[in-house]
Amino acid sequence: MSLVIVGTVAFDAIETPFGKTDKIVGGAATFAGLAASYLYDHVKLISVIGEDFGDDNMHILKSRGIDVEGVEIVAGGKSFFWAGKYHNDMNSRDTLVTELNVLANFDPKVPASYQDCTHLLLGNLTPQVQMQTLERLEQKPKLVVLDTMNFWMDVALDDLKKVLLKVDVLTINDAEARQLSGEYSLVKAADVILKMGPKYLIIKKGEHGALLFGDGQVFSAPALPLADVFDPTGAGDAFAGGFIGYLAKVKSVNFTNMKNAIIYGSALASFCVEKFGTEKLQHLSAADIKERIQQFVSLAKFEISE
Amino acid sequence: MSLVIVGTVAFDAIETPFGKTDKIVGGAATFAGLAASYLYDHVKLISVIGEDFGDDNMHILKSRGIDVEGVEIVAGGKSFFWAGKYHNDMNSRDTLVTELNVLANFDPKVPASYQDCTHLLLGNLTPQVQMQTLERLEQKPKLVVLDTMNFWMDVALDDLKKVLLKVDVLTINDAEARQLSGEYSLVKAADVILKMGPKYLIIKKGEHGALLFGDGQVFSAPALPLADVFDPTGAGDAFAGGFIGYLAKVKSVNFTNMKNAIIYGSALASFCVEKFGTEKLQHLSAADIKERIQQFVSLAKFEISE
Repeated sequence: MSLVIVGTVAFDAIETPFGKTDKIVGGAATFAGLAASYLYDHVKLISVIGEDFGDDNMHILKSRGIDVEGVEIVAGGKSFFWAGKYHNDMNSRDTLVTELNVLANFDPKVPASYQDCTHLLLGNLTPQVQMQTLERLEQKPKLVVLDTMNFWMDVALDDLKKVLLKVDVLTINDAEARQLSGEYSLVKAADVILKMGPKYLIIKKGEHGALLFGDGQVFSAPALPLADVFDPTGAGDAFAGGFIGYLAKVKSVNFTNMKNAIIYGSALASFCVEKFGTEKLQHLSAADIKERIQQFVSLAKFEISE
Repeated sequence: MSLVIVGTVAFDAIETPFGKTDKIVGGAATFAGLAASYLYDHVKLISVIGEDFGDDNMHILKSRGIDVEGVEIVAGGKSFFWAGKYHNDMNSRDTLVTELNVLANFDPKVPASYQDCTHLLLGNLTPQVQMQTLERLEQKPKLVVLDTMNFWMDVALDDLKKVLLKVDVLTINDAEARQLSGEYSLVKAADVILKMGPKYLIIKKGEHGALLFGDGQVFSAPALPLADVFDPTGAGDAFAGGFIGYLAKVKSVNFTNMKNAIIYGSALASFCVEKFGTEKLQHLSAADIKERIQQFVSLAKFEISE
């Protein structure tokens, strides 16, 4: 049994109202992998990097026990690089630089040791690479979670729809749910999207929490109100990683476990935004996570007895 | 013991993507009073209307057992009238007409029979009228809830700050909390606002639910995802009415009861938006409300056992 995550391992340069960074480690698979590593022991990444990535950066993943055999290093290549600047409200950002570099020809390798994959996270990437990864697994995983974004709906909608037919859970934000479904009401959007393939839909609403639709039920998860959101980069990936990491740990997939998985994902995302990049996700303790989960419990709990 | 609500009783003309109305009954006190009437028996309104309001419209309030002795009828006067058009997203709207009419000289009358007021809702109105109402009660009510909006922060901030010193609970939306506090983070905004007078702050986030701050705690209430939001007019007032109506019923004010009150307020608001104006709030059954509350319980419930 293992949890395989395919996605970018990359460099980010980030500017927020609180400061700016040089090139630091980023990428969807990095954030998701780190988050998942706190909940499940057998996390394996599939990605592609350049020679510039370096051992120190790779150590960030390895030191969390993450298997990087599936992270291809392209000789003489440069890693994917994104630079962005967040506005004052932290909810919108400008992309300053996108250098695809080795990602432009990403051909996902699935090592033999990854064929025990039971849980697969198809991180935000071109739908074609997501599909290739799925096809290169000899057995269909027990649970496939797909994360995507508006960009792929704009430029590769047909490919995206093909992958959607093969996944169990889709995670997107509210604007993307509206775009994909053509419906403004999120209830109607969920009805449309759940007919496209996924059995469950998670709508991420950032500071407003998340909604889970599936099994004819709805769950509304709160977001933890934070005094300071330092850097939102990677929060969605940390959420997805925490979500699938929890499900890999508890094994059985049902609505009750999915709800808890969303709370764990939200907790990991709430840590992620407290520092730049992956900094906060590198050194959490079990006590940190337990305490944060309790904050979510207190935050949402009410008891009406009549 | 009674619950007194001061606010507008008025006419609205509403246009949404689903249709449009002629002049129909509206006003903050109307929506709040109707909502409260499902939870508490002794609801009393203070407002001002013109002769044009008419017995049929007054019957909408009276038939719910609402005391209208404090609703002054100005001979020859015309009732406050607002016309607005909602955009496709239902979250933004244009005001087409605002005719203050009798509201321009509103001098709130507190009948002797209202002096048993234990719970007071100062509905969205000029802070001066809110203050006058409070001053005309011989005994300070057990609980004073104030609803206001950005307009009063723009044109009457000093008066608003004076009333804030005398209230227990403030209800505003997220943009207003940011405006009033000068802080973007809602956690920091709450810290600032809770130093301005209120012991509790409720931040209404519409389709994203509500946050309650106070007693060093935070509660995040979900909003019920709805397939169709027909007309958002009055939802905030129905929320405030349901909120204070529940607290009048259960009598004691503590964080646990405040949380439940928010769920009841949210439930009443969720009914409100399902039809134009007050239509849905005129004929709810106890079973309707019980079922809706159960939907909120299911929506938010999760159990993490470790």
